[in-house]
Amino acid sequence: MLADRKYRVGVLGASGYTGADLVRLLIAHPNTEIALLTGERKAGMSLKSVFPHFVGYDIPDIISIDEVEWPAIELDVVFCALPHATSQDVIKGLLHSLNHSILDEMIVTTTADQANSLRSEVKVVDLSADFRLRDTETYAKWYGKAHDATDLQKKAVYGLTEIYRDDIKKADLVACPGCYPTAALLSLIPLLKAGLIKTEDILIDAKSGVSGAGRSLKEQNLFVEVSEAMHPYGIGSHRHMPEIEQELAVASKNDVTISFTPHLVPMNRGELETIYVKLEGNETPETLKAALLSAYENEPFVHILEGSIAPATRMVRGSNNCVINVFPDRIPGRAIIIAAIDNLVKGSSGQAIQNMNLMLGLEETTGLMQAPMFP
Amino acid sequence: MLADRKYRVGVLGASGYTGADLVRLLIAHPNTEIALLTGERKAGMSLKSVFPHFVGYDIPDIISIDEVEWPAIELDVVFCALPHATSQDVIKGLLHSLNHSILDEMIVTTTADQANSLRSEVKVVDLSADFRLRDTETYAKWYGKAHDATDLQKKAVYGLTEIYRDDIKKADLVACPGCYPTAALLSLIPLLKAGLIKTEDILIDAKSGVSGAGRSLKEQNLFVEVSEAMHPYGIGSHRHMPEIEQELAVASKNDVTISFTPHLVPMNRGELETIYVKLEGNETPETLKAALLSAYENEPFVHILEGSIAPATRMVRGSNNCVINVFPDRIPGRAIIIAAIDNLVKGSSGQAIQNMNLMLGLEETTGLMQAPMFP
Amino acid sequence: MLADRKYRVGVLGASGYTGADLVRLLIAHPNTEIALLTGERKAGMSLKSVFPHFVGYDIPDIISIDEVEWPAIELDVVFCALPHATSQDVIKGLLHSLNHSILDEMIVTTTADQANSLRSEVKVVDLSADFRLRDTETYAKWYGKAHDATDLQKKAVYGLTEIYRDDIKKADLVACPGCYPTAALLSLIPLLKAGLIKTEDILIDAKSGVSGAGRSLKEQNLFVEVSEAMHPYGIGSHRHMPEIEQELAVASKNDVTISFTPHLVPMNRGELETIYVKLEGNETPETLKAALLSAYENEPFVHILEGSIAPATRMVRGSNNCVINVFPDRIPGRAIIIAAIDNLVKGSSGQAIQNMNLMLGLEETTGLMQAPMFP
Amino acid sequence: MLADRKYRVGVLGASGYTGADLVRLLIAHPNTEIALLTGERKAGMSLKSVFPHFVGYDIPDIISIDEVEWPAIELDVVFCALPHATSQDVIKGLLHSLNHSILDEMIVTTTADQANSLRSEVKVVDLSADFRLRDTETYAKWYGKAHDATDLQKKAVYGLTEIYRDDIKKADLVACPGCYPTAALLSLIPLLKAGLIKTEDILIDAKSGVSGAGRSLKEQNLFVEVSEAMHPYGIGSHRHMPEIEQELAVASKNDVTISFTPHLVPMNRGELETIYVKLEGNETPETLKAALLSAYENEPFVHILEGSIAPATRMVRGSNNCVINVFPDRIPGRAIIIAAIDNLVKGSSGQAIQNMNLMLGLEETTGLMQAPMFP
Repeated sequence: MLADRKYRVGVLGASGYTGADLVRLLIAHPNTEIALLTGERKAGMSLKSVFPHFVGYDIPDIISIDEVEWPAIELDVVFCALPHATSQDVIKGLLHSLNHSILDEMIVTTTADQANSLRSEVKVVDLSADFRLRDTETYAKWYGKAHDATDLQKKAVYGLTEIYRDDIKKADLVACPGCYPTAALLSLIPLLKAGLIKTEDILIDAKSGVSGAGRSLKEQNLFVEVSEAMHPYGIGSHRHMPEIEQELAVASKNDVTISFTPHLVPMNRGELETIYVKLEGNETPETLKAALLSAYENEPFVHILEGSIAPATRMVRGSNNCVINVFPDRIPGRAIIIAAIDNLVKGSSGQAIQNMNLMLGLEETTGLMQAPMFP
Repeated sequence: MLADRKYRVGVLGASGYTGADLVRLLIAHPNTEIALLTGERKAGMSLKSVFPHFVGYDIPDIISIDEVEWPAIELDVVFCALPHATSQDVIKGLLHSLNHSILDEMIVTTTADQANSLRSEVKVVDLSADFRLRDTETYAKWYGKAHDATDLQKKAVYGLTEIYRDDIKKADLVACPGCYPTAALLSLIPLLKAGLIKTEDILIDAKSGVSGAGRSLKEQNLFVEVSEAMHPYGIGSHRHMPEIEQELAVASKNDVTISFTPHLVPMNRGELETIYVKLEGNETPETLKAALLSAYENEPFVHILEGSIAPATRMVRGSNNCVINVFPDRIPGRAIIIAAIDNLVKGSSGQAIQNMNLMLGLEETTGLMQAPMFP
Repeated sequence: MLADRKYRVGVLGASGYTGADLVRLLIAHPNTEIALLTGERKAGMSLKSVFPHFVGYDIPDIISIDEVEWPAIELDVVFCALPHATSQDVIKGLLHSLNHSILDEMIVTTTADQANSLRSEVKVVDLSADFRLRDTETYAKWYGKAHDATDLQKKAVYGLTEIYRDDIKKADLVACPGCYPTAALLSLIPLLKAGLIKTEDILIDAKSGVSGAGRSLKEQNLFVEVSEAMHPYGIGSHRHMPEIEQELAVASKNDVTISFTPHLVPMNRGELETIYVKLEGNETPETLKAALLSAYENEPFVHILEGSIAPATRMVRGSNNCVINVFPDRIPGRAIIIAAIDNLVKGSSGQAIQNMNLMLGLEETTGLMQAPMFP
Repeated sequence: MLADRKYRVGVLGASGYTGADLVRLLIAHPNTEIALLTGERKAGMSLKSVFPHFVGYDIPDIISIDEVEWPAIELDVVFCALPHATSQDVIKGLLHSLNHSILDEMIVTTTADQANSLRSEVKVVDLSADFRLRDTETYAKWYGKAHDATDLQKKAVYGLTEIYRDDIKKADLVACPGCYPTAALLSLIPLLKAGLIKTEDILIDAKSGVSGAGRSLKEQNLFVEVSEAMHPYGIGSHRHMPEIEQELAVASKNDVTISFTPHLVPMNRGELETIYVKLEGNETPETLKAALLSAYENEPFVHILEGSIAPATRMVRGSNNCVINVFPDRIPGRAIIIAAIDNLVKGSSGQAIQNMNLMLGLEETTGLMQAPMFP
C-alpha cells in the first residue's frame, strides 16, 4: 500500500469520550481521512458543537447511523464505539448490508451469484465488549442477554496487539480489549506463558480516571462527587473480569479465577494496576522482570521501567504507551507487578488505531508516536 | 473534672499540616485552650502568617521550643507533631525538665527530696512514629537510628483508641498510630482476634491524599506532578508496615507479615485501604461483617456500612469517622475489606484529640462530632 | 431564651448541596434539633442514602413536603432551600397553613375569630432568590414569571447579615443573598455608603467552585468536563446581577449598573471576586481599606487582610468567614478589591444560620466559629 | 528547503516544564532532530530520569551548557528556555562564540579577516523575557538589573506570530511573548489598530494553570496549597504588564496603561483572560467581533467562536490554538473579550515552534496541528 494513501475511516458512536479520542488521534494520523461520524443523541450536530475543542478542524458532522449510505460511503475502516450489547447488532447489520467477505465462511451454501457479487473488505475495529468473549455463554451471563452474532464472534480476533499481532494482521473484525484488561494482560501473559507465577491468587487492584465512566449523566460522575475524593466500585462484579480470566487461561492453559477491584480516582485520564501474584518454585521478582523485558524488548509501546522506578499515570498521559515494573513483596513467595496506561489511548482508542494500522498493512506505530503530555 | 474547665494545651511542631489540623479541631473543642505553639523554621511568626486560614482566630504566635518556659507555662496536655526521630528526644527532655511522675518507676532509687518535689502530670500525645514500636530494635531497623528513650517507650500506650481505650485512659504518654495503620488495624484486629481470617497473605493496597506527605518542599509534591495523575510509592519499604505487623501480631497472637503498597492520589485529604484476606475454615464475608458490626456497634466513630455500600473518602472528609465494609472476593476462600478515613483526622489529629479526651477524663467524643464536609 | 434550648428546625429541599451543608452546620449547632427534612425526588429515603457522609448521625429521613403535618410538627425555624420560583409558593402556603402572624398586616380586615386563633411565630429563612428582589417587576423580568407572593415580598428582609443586622433580628422572613452578591456587597457597600468610589464602571470578575451549580445532572458539571479546565458562563446574563445592583443602589442612593462575569473553577467550594472600581476625588486604595477596616472591625466573620496579602479561597473553606483586601490598580484613579468566601457557607448555608441566630435572639456566632478546613 | 530535511535543534534549559513541552512537540515535528538538551541542576542525567514520561523516546541526555562543543554541534536552531535575566548573557555568549552574522551590523569596524571567517546562521528562539522589551530602561526597571545585551535587543523580533509574521521570517533572534501577553495581545491588537476600543481603562483579569509557575520548589506550588483552592497573585506588579503595554502602544500608536490581575487556578495547563474594554464612538460588540473575524479568518491557530459560545481552557489543552469571543457588557459602552490558550503551547513552546517554522522557511503549521486533548 502506498505510504501516502488516505484510508476512509468512519467512527460509529463518536459523541462519547472514546469517540473524541479516536478523532483526536485520527487527526494526527497521516494515512486516514475521517469520512463518517455517527451518534444518535447528537445526530445533526457538528462535532465542534458536541466537542468544542475540535473547533478549527475540518471534520464531518455527526449523523444518525440510519442516514449512512452504505456502501456508497466507501469506508476502508469502521471503528465501532457504541455501547456494549448494541455493537453486535450494528456490526452484523453493517457487514450484511456490505455483503462482506467475512460472511462467506459463515454461510454454508453460497450461490454463484452471491459469490460473484461485489465483496466488501472493510475492516471493523470494535471498541465495545461485544466480541471480546470467545464463549458466548459467558457473554450472556455477564451482559444479561444472549449474544446475537455468535457466528461472527468466531471470526473476531481479540485485539491485544502485542499478544495477537499476527492474527490481527489477517483479521476483518477485531475486538479491542477493555482498558483494565489491557494493563492486566500485558503484565501477566508473559509470566503465565513462561510458568513463572501461579494461576491461583492473582489479585488486581485497579485505579482509573473518570473518563472511563463515559459522558453519560450520572450523579456519581459529577465533579463535586468525585473531586477531592476516591472510592472503589463494582467490587467483585466488574465486567472486565471474565475478559481477563479468558486471556489468562489461554496463556496459562488452565482455568484462572482472579480477584479484581477497580477504584475511581479524581483525574480525567489514566489507569494504574497493582497486581499481587504468587511466584512459582524458585522464581523471583528479578526473573519475572527479566521475562517481561524479554517479551517486550522490541515493542514500541510497552516499556519495562529501570530499577525500582514506580509506574505512574503521568508517564503515559495521552499516549499509547504502557509502563510496567516488578517489585518484591514483603511476604515471601510473592511479587507485585504495577502497570500504567492511559485508559482512553492504549486502553481504548490508541490500541484500536494500532490494530487498524496492522489490519491495513501500515507501520504499526503510524500516528501513535506522540509523546505523553506532562504536565 | 468540670465540664466547662479549659485545659491548657500545647502543640509542638505546629507549622505542618498535622499541626494545622490539630489547631482546627482544638478551636472547636469546648474544653481546651491553645496555650502554646512551637515550630523551628517558623518561630516568631504569627500562626496566620503560616496558615492564613486562621485569620480571625485568637491563637498564640509560634515560638521556638527553646523559648518555652517550662514548667511555668502550666500545660495540661502536650501534642507532639514533630518529625520522626526528633520526637523522642524532645519528649524525654520535656518530661525530665517537668520532673514528670512517669519517670518515677523508671528511676530505681529516688531520694525523699526528689519524691517530694512537685510532680508534673502533663499528658503527652505523640503523633510521630517514635513511640509506636514496642520493640526498639525494630524501631532502629526501620528508622535507621537507635532509640534514645527506650525506658520511656515501655510506658507508652499505642493510641488506637477503639482497641486500647482502657490503657489510654490511664496513660501519661500515648503514641498515636500512623494514618495507614489506623485504617488497616481497625479493619483487621477484630477479625484476627476472633480467628476468622488467616494471618498469611494479608495484602493491603492503600491510597492516600497528598497532605500525608507533609508541607516540605519536594518536587514530587508539586501540584503539577500530582494533579491529574497517580502513582504508588514506598513499595515494600513503607515504615508503616512494622507498626501494622506489630499490632496484628498482638491480635492474632502470632507473627504476621503483611504486604503493603501505598499510592498517592490527587486529593488533599482522605485515605482508602483495600485489604485482601484469606478466610479461615468456614468463615464467609458475612461472618466477617458480623464480627465487625459486633466489635464496633457502640463506637461513635467507626461505622460498618450497610449492604454493599462501598466506603468512599468523601464520606469521612474532615471528620474523625472511619467507614468499613466487607465484600466477597471472586476467588473462593477470600474476602475484601475496605476502609476509609481522613488521614489528617482519624489518621492523625482527630484520633490524638480522642485520646486526649480519654486521658483527661472527658467524654471521648468531645469536640469531634462535627459532620464530614461534603461537598 | 435559654442558652441550652433546642429549637426545632426544618430544611425544605434537603437533598441538594446547600441542604447538605445546612445539615452539616446544624449538627454542630448547640441550640438546634433537626426535626424535618423534605425533598421530592428523594422522598422516603434516609439522609445517609442521599448523602452517605451522614452515616452515624441521627437525622430524620427525607419526606415529601406534602407529608409534613403542619402545624403539629411544631417547628421554630424553616430553612427553605428549594429551587428559585418554587420557594415563594411553598412559603406562602406554609405561612397560611400556620396562620402566621406575618400575615396580619397583609390582610386588610381580620375577624375577631381569626385574630384570636393561634398565631404561629415560626421563622422562615429562604435561601432561594424568590424574596431577594424588592421590585417584583425586576423579579419577573429576570426569572421569567410573575411573582406570586408580592405582599409577602414586602415583609421580607434581605439577609446580608452585616448590613441588615437590626432588621433581621425583627424579621419573620429573611431572604438570604446569593453567593456572588454576598462577596460583592460586603466589599462594596461600605465604600459606596461613604462615597469613596464611583457608581459607574464597577466590574466584578467572579470565580466559583462547582458546588454552586448544584447536584442536578448536567453535562457541563461532569468531572471530566470541569477538571483540569475553567471557563466563564452566564456572561452578561447571570441572575445575581439585579440583586447586586439593587443593594448597591440602596448604599449609594443612586441607580447602579454593574458588569458581572462569573467563571467556573475546578474546585468543590470557594468563591473569589476581583472587583475593579473607580476612585472618587482624592480617594486612594488606602482610604478604601481604612473604610473597610472601620466597617468590619467588630465583625466576627469579615476580615480585612493585612498589608498586601491576597485573599484566597483556601483561607475560608468550610467556614462562614469572608476575607477582603484592597489593592492599587496600575491605572491611576482605580483600585482593585478582592474578596473570598466559601460559596456554600457565608455564601449560603452559613449566612442562613447566622441569620437564624439573630432571629431567635441567640448569639450571632453560635455554631459558626469552626475554623476553615485547610488542607 | 527540503520537506524531509531534519534540522538540528537544541534546547537550553530543558529540565523545566517549558523545556518538557518543547521536547514533546519536537518529537512530533517531522523536520527536527533534537541534538542537544542542557540543564545545570540536572546535568548528566538522562531526560527520562528528569521527566519519566519520555521513557521510550530516543533523546540525548541533559548536559551542562559549559560542555556544549560549539560550533561543532552544528545546530540549526537554539531554543532558549532559561530563567529571565540569564538568557541574555547566554545568548550573547553563544552568538559571539559562533561568530554569528547577526553581530555584523552591531560591530562598527570589522576587519577583513573577521568578515571572511565562517558566519553562523543559527536561529535563536528565546522563551525568556530577556528580549521582549524594546526599551532596555523598561527592562531594567521591571527586572531589577541593567540589560546586558542592548545591541542584541535591537535585532530581536517580538515573536507574536500572527502579528509579526513577516519580521519573524527574516529574524535571527525571536523573543517569544509571555503566556499572558499572547492571549491579551491576540485579543486586543486588531481592535486597537482599527480604533474600535479606547486605550484607557483596559482591564485584564487573567487565570492560569499552575505549570506557569514552573517546577521550582515553592510552598505555594505544593499540591495541597493549590488543589481545591484559587487565589490572585502579583496584583499590580506582574512582569507581563510592560510587555502587554508595549505592544498595545504599538498597535494604538499611543501610550497605554493597563490593569492586569493574574489568578492561579487548580489545573496543570490552561489560561483564560477576561478582558474588559470601553468601546469607541458607535462601536458595538458585534463590530469588535467582526474585526477579529476579519483579522484571523485565515489563521490556522486563532479561532473566533460562533454565537455566544464561551471560550474554555478545555478547548485548547495541549494544542497551539487560541479561542476568542466577544460579549456585550451590561454597562453601556463597554464590551468583554474572552480568550483561552494553553499557557505551555501557544503561550510558550508551541508558539516558539511556530516561529521556528517561519524562520526556517517551513510551513508555519508543521508539527503543530495536533488536536487539543479533551478529556
